[in-house]
Amino acid sequence: MTMYMDVHHGMKGITEAELMAAHKADLAIEGEEKVHFERAWADPASGTVYCLSEAPSADAVMRIHERTGHPASEIHPVPLVV
Amino acid sequence: MTMYMDVHHGMKGITEAELMAAHKADLAIEGEEKVHFERAWADPASGTVYCLSEAPSADAVMRIHERTGHPASEIHPVPLVV
Repeated sequence: MTMYMDVHHGMKGITEAELMAAHKADLAIEGEEKVHFERAWADPASGTVYCLSEAPSADAVMRIHERTGHPASEIHPVPLVV
Repeated sequence: MTMYMDVHHGMKGITEAELMAAHKADLAIEGEEKVHFERAWADPASGTVYCLSEAPSADAVMRIHERTGHPASEIHPVPLVV
């Protein structure tokens, strides 16, 4: 399992409730791809959302985000953490 | 105090020791700007590093990163967290 950081652009004006709803939708099906979404951080002003996950592959993360209606704009494995 | 996510590009090949050294350099002087760097995640393959901090302003975060020799490419306040 590897850690991944994925980034969503274009989510200008996202609210705390919307972020929570999106996160819960991911959590509800993440097990089907052996993904776990740990945290997400959002900047409503620029419409940027960062999601930290642990997963078997970047594709697995992307599939969960696509199925819940918010495909990521980019994704990076982040094997180094401090 | 606000949470910030800043992003560094162009750090291809960064090692765990280099990430740790950069983080420790930030920690050593962050108090002078009332910044606290909480975590950092690095993708050596693409050269991308994400840093999560709590700070009084984006400028304060940028000043610490500049003084320690690794200015950020971008920074976003992330007031929403799940």
